[in-house]
Amino acid sequence: MIVVMARDTSDDDLNAIRERIEARGLKAQISQGVERVVVGVLGSIPPDFKDEMELMNGVTQVVMISKPYKLASREFHPADTIIKVGDAVIGGPKPVIMAGPCSVEDEEQMVSTAKAVKAAGATILRGGAFKPRTSPYSFRGMGEDGLKLLRLAKQETGLPIITEVMATADVETVAKYADILQIGARNMQNYNLLDEVGLIGKPVMVKRGLAASYEEWLLAAEYVMAGGNQQVILCERGIRGFETFTRFTLDVAAVPVIKRLSHLPIVADPSHSTGKWYLVTPVALASVAAGAHGLLIEVHPNPDLAKCDGPQSLTFENFDMLMEQVNAIASVRKQPVTAG
Amino acid sequence: MIVVMARDTSDDDLNAIRERIEARGLKAQISQGVERVVVGVLGSIPPDFKDEMELMNGVTQVVMISKPYKLASREFHPADTIIKVGDAVIGGPKPVIMAGPCSVEDEEQMVSTAKAVKAAGATILRGGAFKPRTSPYSFRGMGEDGLKLLRLAKQETGLPIITEVMATADVETVAKYADILQIGARNMQNYNLLDEVGLIGKPVMVKRGLAASYEEWLLAAEYVMAGGNQQVILCERGIRGFETFTRFTLDVAAVPVIKRLSHLPIVADPSHSTGKWYLVTPVALASVAAGAHGLLIEVHPNPDLAKCDGPQSLTFENFDMLMEQVNAIASVRKQPVTAG
Amino acid sequence: MIVVMARDTSDDDLNAIRERIEARGLKAQISQGVERVVVGVLGSIPPDFKDEMELMNGVTQVVMISKPYKLASREFHPADTIIKVGDAVIGGPKPVIMAGPCSVEDEEQMVSTAKAVKAAGATILRGGAFKPRTSPYSFRGMGEDGLKLLRLAKQETGLPIITEVMATADVETVAKYADILQIGARNMQNYNLLDEVGLIGKPVMVKRGLAASYEEWLLAAEYVMAGGNQQVILCERGIRGFETFTRFTLDVAAVPVIKRLSHLPIVADPSHSTGKWYLVTPVALASVAAGAHGLLIEVHPNPDLAKCDGPQSLTFENFDMLMEQVNAIASVRKQPVTAG
Amino acid sequence: MIVVMARDTSDDDLNAIRERIEARGLKAQISQGVERVVVGVLGSIPPDFKDEMELMNGVTQVVMISKPYKLASREFHPADTIIKVGDAVIGGPKPVIMAGPCSVEDEEQMVSTAKAVKAAGATILRGGAFKPRTSPYSFRGMGEDGLKLLRLAKQETGLPIITEVMATADVETVAKYADILQIGARNMQNYNLLDEVGLIGKPVMVKRGLAASYEEWLLAAEYVMAGGNQQVILCERGIRGFETFTRFTLDVAAVPVIKRLSHLPIVADPSHSTGKWYLVTPVALASVAAGAHGLLIEVHPNPDLAKCDGPQSLTFENFDMLMEQVNAIASVRKQPVTAG
Repeated sequence: MIVVMARDTSDDDLNAIRERIEARGLKAQISQGVERVVVGVLGSIPPDFKDEMELMNGVTQVVMISKPYKLASREFHPADTIIKVGDAVIGGPKPVIMAGPCSVEDEEQMVSTAKAVKAAGATILRGGAFKPRTSPYSFRGMGEDGLKLLRLAKQETGLPIITEVMATADVETVAKYADILQIGARNMQNYNLLDEVGLIGKPVMVKRGLAASYEEWLLAAEYVMAGGNQQVILCERGIRGFETFTRFTLDVAAVPVIKRLSHLPIVADPSHSTGKWYLVTPVALASVAAGAHGLLIEVHPNPDLAKCDGPQSLTFENFDMLMEQVNAIASVRKQPVTAG
Repeated sequence: MIVVMARDTSDDDLNAIRERIEARGLKAQISQGVERVVVGVLGSIPPDFKDEMELMNGVTQVVMISKPYKLASREFHPADTIIKVGDAVIGGPKPVIMAGPCSVEDEEQMVSTAKAVKAAGATILRGGAFKPRTSPYSFRGMGEDGLKLLRLAKQETGLPIITEVMATADVETVAKYADILQIGARNMQNYNLLDEVGLIGKPVMVKRGLAASYEEWLLAAEYVMAGGNQQVILCERGIRGFETFTRFTLDVAAVPVIKRLSHLPIVADPSHSTGKWYLVTPVALASVAAGAHGLLIEVHPNPDLAKCDGPQSLTFENFDMLMEQVNAIASVRKQPVTAG
Repeated sequence: MIVVMARDTSDDDLNAIRERIEARGLKAQISQGVERVVVGVLGSIPPDFKDEMELMNGVTQVVMISKPYKLASREFHPADTIIKVGDAVIGGPKPVIMAGPCSVEDEEQMVSTAKAVKAAGATILRGGAFKPRTSPYSFRGMGEDGLKLLRLAKQETGLPIITEVMATADVETVAKYADILQIGARNMQNYNLLDEVGLIGKPVMVKRGLAASYEEWLLAAEYVMAGGNQQVILCERGIRGFETFTRFTLDVAAVPVIKRLSHLPIVADPSHSTGKWYLVTPVALASVAAGAHGLLIEVHPNPDLAKCDGPQSLTFENFDMLMEQVNAIASVRKQPVTAG
Repeated sequence: MIVVMARDTSDDDLNAIRERIEARGLKAQISQGVERVVVGVLGSIPPDFKDEMELMNGVTQVVMISKPYKLASREFHPADTIIKVGDAVIGGPKPVIMAGPCSVEDEEQMVSTAKAVKAAGATILRGGAFKPRTSPYSFRGMGEDGLKLLRLAKQETGLPIITEVMATADVETVAKYADILQIGARNMQNYNLLDEVGLIGKPVMVKRGLAASYEEWLLAAEYVMAGGNQQVILCERGIRGFETFTRFTLDVAAVPVIKRLSHLPIVADPSHSTGKWYLVTPVALASVAAGAHGLLIEVHPNPDLAKCDGPQSLTFENFDMLMEQVNAIASVRKQPVTAG
C-alpha cells in the first residue's frame, strides 16, 4: 500500500502517519518527491487500514499495490529512477555503455582497454576480479589484485567501475574499489548476498537468473531495496532455452516489460547472452531500440588470448563500430514507456 | 556438396557434370549466377567424389556442405535471396512491413485496414481466412469467403496478400488468391503441407515452430526448397519459454543467426510473440535494429471488438507511430551481415 | 455444462432436455451410463440456463465445466474411458505394451519382431509406414507397402496394429490397415488432421507436442472428440527442454495430472523421450509406477542396422528384461487416481 | 586422467608417482580401493604425460577422462559411493526416505512429525531452519532456534538430520546440528558456499539448479569434492519448464543418467517438483522405479496451517500410504545401472 500526501505536508502529519503505520506492526518508507510525498507501507495490510489512512490529515490518496514486489514496482514509485555514477546517468534517455574485459588479467590489458572504450564513448568500465566459473578447475579471477588494477585503470581514464561480487565476505572489499556492484545471474537468488548489498551506499546491478521469471527477478531487486538501498539496476543477460547455437536466449521483450512494471533502469548484456562476437552488435542494437538504458559489452585487446569468454569479446575496432551504430539508433528512438 | 564453375562454362561441360552426378545416384541442382555457375549436389556423397569433380572441365572449386540443410544454407547460395511481391522487395536493405488483422471479419474491416496500413507505409496486407485455433470451439476463420474479402482489399489498395494455409487440400485455393502463402508455427513440421507448397510457384513464409531449433527450422524451409520452390521467407514469431507474462519469447538473436547460416530473408512477428499491444512497437524496433528484413504486424480498426487476438492488435494510430519509428531505425542501421 | 439425469429417465424427458438445449443454439451429447445418464452441453452457455435445466423433469444435478476442454474433461465423464483393441484393454489396471520397430523395413524384420514382442507379453504391435522426418533427405517410410507388412505381421501373431498417420489424404488408407491411428507430436496441432480422425470409427492416439501444455494437449484430444470419436488415447513422449544429453525430457508427472484432469487413457513413450536404449527401461518403469495405462517401446532385431532410431531401440533380449520388470512393478502398484 | 595401480603397490612406487605428477604442476588424489589403488590426476595434462605414467613402476593402466568433472565421474571412481548416516545407507539397493516439514515451526510440530515419519519407515529427518524465499517479505525460517528443535526431534527419535545451509557464515553452525547439509537449487552455483562445504567432514546434498544441465550439476558436486569432501549426494528436484500446472518438471531420466555418469547417490524430491500433494506419491514411485537411491518428502501434521509449502505437504496418513507403496516398488525393482 502507498499513501500519497501533499508536497507541503507538515512534519507532524507525516509523523502521525508513520506512528499509525508502526502501531499496526507495519513498516513505513518515506520518499520526498518534488510534487508530493509518498509513504510506502510494507507488511500484511489489515482490511480496514486503507480507509483509516484515507481519513488522516494531509493524505490525498491511498493505493493498494497488488504485486508481490512493492519498492521495485512502478505503482510505488511512478517516476523513472535515475542513477548517477561518474559522468554516467543510468535511467535517462541516453544509453550508458559499460565495457571492458570479462576478467582482469594485467595492467597493460586493463589500461589499454579502458582507454579504448572511453575513446569510443563508453562511460563505465567493467572487468571481473572475482569470477563465477562452472568448473572448479577454471581460472577464478585475480581477486583483490584485480580490483587494484581496475582502480588503476579508473585513475588513468576517470571511468567509474562496475565489477561482480560473489560472496558476502567480499562485499566490503569490492565496495572499496567499485562504483557499482554486480550480482551475477548465478547469485540472483543468493539471498544473503542480496541482503548484504542492500546495506551499502553504492548502486547494485542485479543480473537476471537464467531461469528467472520477471517477478522473481524484481523480487531479487526488492531484497536489495528492502535492505535500504534504492539504487538498483536490472540487467537482462539471456535466459536458458533449448537452442544451443547461442549460449543463452536474450529476451528482448524484457526491456519494455520491466520498464512498465518497474521504475528501475534496465540494461542488456549481448555478450553473455549470445556467446559469439558476431552476434553482439545486432543484439546490442536490438536492445537499445527496445528502450534499454544501457549495455554491458565485453571488449578485449586480443580476444583469441583472453583467459575467459574470448569468443564473445569484441576487438577495439569492432567496439568502435558498435558504438557508432548504438549512437545512431539511440538518436532516433523514442522512449516506448514514459513515466509520470 | 557444391561444385562451382566459371560463368562462361559451356553447356557440354555442365551436362557432363550433371551426368556424372546422376550416375552416382545423386541429384544436381544448377544455379546460374552473374559471376559463376553453382551446381548443388544432393544425396549421400561417396568419399572419393569430391576429387573426381575437381578434375572435371570448367570446375573452379568444390565445397563440402556440412550442414544437414543444403539449399537453404549460405554456403550453397552465398548471395542474399531477394523476393519481389508487388512493390515489396523482401530480403533487401529496406524492411518490408506486412500488416493487417489477425482474422478477416468483414469487408468494411478489411478494406479500411488495408487503406490505413498502406497509408502508413505497409507494402503487404496480412489477414487470416483459415485460422489455427487451440480450441475446436473457437472461431476458425471465414475460409474462402475470407480470401475473397482479401482480394477485394487488394483490388482497392494494390497491396499484395499474405495469408495462412493449413491443409494440403486448401493449397490450390489459397494460392489462387494469395501472393505469399504462410505456414504457421503449429504446421512447421507438417511435412505433407511443406511438400505441397514446394510445388507451387509463389513465395512461402515458414514461421518458426514454438520449440524449433534453428536447424529444424531451416530443414522445414529445406522441405519447401527440395520440392523446387526457392522463394522461402523465414519468420521468427517467438518460442515457448517459462515466462507467462508474454505469450511467447521473441528470440531476437535468431535474426542475425539466420542471416549468417542462410541466404533466405528473415522477418519478425512482434504481435504473436508478445501478445500485448504495448510491447509490439519496442519489440518491432528491436527486430529491425537486429537486421530483420521485415515485420508482420496485427492491426485492427477496433482491437476491443476483434474476433481474434485483440489484445495484441494495434489501432491505426498506434500503427502510424510504429511505422514512423521503424523508418527512423531502418534509415540508420547498417546490415550486420553482408553477403558475398 | 453437464446435466446429470437418473438412470431410468424416460425418453420423453430426455428428448425434452435435448430440444431445450438445441433451442438455445447449443449442442447436446448424451452418454448412457450404468447408474445415470449424462448430457453434455457444448457451446456458450447463457447465464440463466443452468437454473432452467435444474428445474426440468428427471434432472438430478447440473454442473458447469470451467475447463476449455469439455468432452475430454473428467468433470464431463467421471469414469475412466476403457478402449478395447484385440486382446488389449487400454485404460484398465494392467499396463498395455505396444512394441515394435520405429519404421517398417521388410517382412523378416516385422514378423520376427512381432513374434518376439508377443512372446514377451506385448499385446499391440507398433511400426511406422509413414515417417515424419526432420530432414527431407531422410528415409520417410515405406508407405502403403509398409502397412501391408504390418498386416502380414498381424496375421502371423494376432497382434492389433498401431501406426502413424501424417496426412488427411492418408487417413482412409491407414484406417484400412491399422487398429489404432497415431497422431505424432509434430502434428498435435495439425487441426485438419485432428478433424479428419475425429470422423473415423477407430481409436486414435494423440502424442503430446514437444512444447504443448496439458491444456493444449487435451484440446487436441477435444478436436478429435468434438468430431464424434470418443476413443482417444494420450501419449506423453517427452517435451523439449534445455538438456541435450537426452533427446527430450519425459514429464512423468503428466501421467497423474492427465488422470486427474481427464478420463482418457494415458500411455508413455520412453524410447523417443530418452533417445538412448539404456535409459528406456528405467524411464518405462517410472512411467508404469506413476500410473501409466501403457507404454510404447521401440524394438528391433538388430538396432545397429535400423533405418531409423537405432540408438533408442531395444534388442529382443533387452525387451524381455523390460517386460519382466514392468510386470513386477504393475503387480504392486495401486492406481493413484480412482474414478467415480 | 587416472592412474590405476595394483593393490599391493609399495609406498615408494606410490610416492614416485605422486612426485612426478606434482613436478608437472598437477595435483594427485589417491583412492585406496580393495582391489586396486587409483590415483586421480587433476589439471591440464601435457600430451606426453600418459605415456610417461604408463612406464612407471606398479602402474597397470592409465585412463584419460574426457568429462569436465573428474572426481564426480564414474570413470574416475567406478564403484557406487555409499554414504552412511545413522541407520541410513545412501547409495545402496534400498531407497532412503528423508521426510519432515518444509520449515521448522515449533517443538510439537517437529517432534510429532519426526515420530510419525519414523514409524512409517523414514530414516532421515528433514526440516528447514534457514529458508530461501523468493520474496523478502516471506517467513525466512527460525534460524539457529530451528536447528535446536531439529536436534530435539533427533534426540527423541534417533533420526539423523538433513537441513539447508544458505550462507558461508552459517556453515559451521549448521554443521554443528546437521548430519547432512543441503545446498538448495538456488545456490547450486553459489561457488563460495560450495567451496566452504567442501571443507567440512559431513555429507552434502546438492540439489539441481532449476535450469542446470547434468554437466553443470555434476560440476557443482565437483566443487565440493575438489575441496576434499567426497560425500556428496545429488538431488533431482525438478527443472523449470513451460508448464505452470506443476511447480517444476521432475526430470525422471536424470536418475539413470546420473547413475551412468557418476558414482554419487541420486535422490528425488517429488514435493518441490510437483507443488501439489496429490502428485507427490505417483512421482515418488516413479523416481524409485527409475532407480533413485532415496526420496525427500515434505510431511506436516496439518498442511493447511503450514507456514511454507502447505499445498505440497503430505499428512501423516498419506505419508504412510506412500511408504507402503515405495516399499512394494523397491522390493521388485532391479538396479538399472550396475557398478563395476
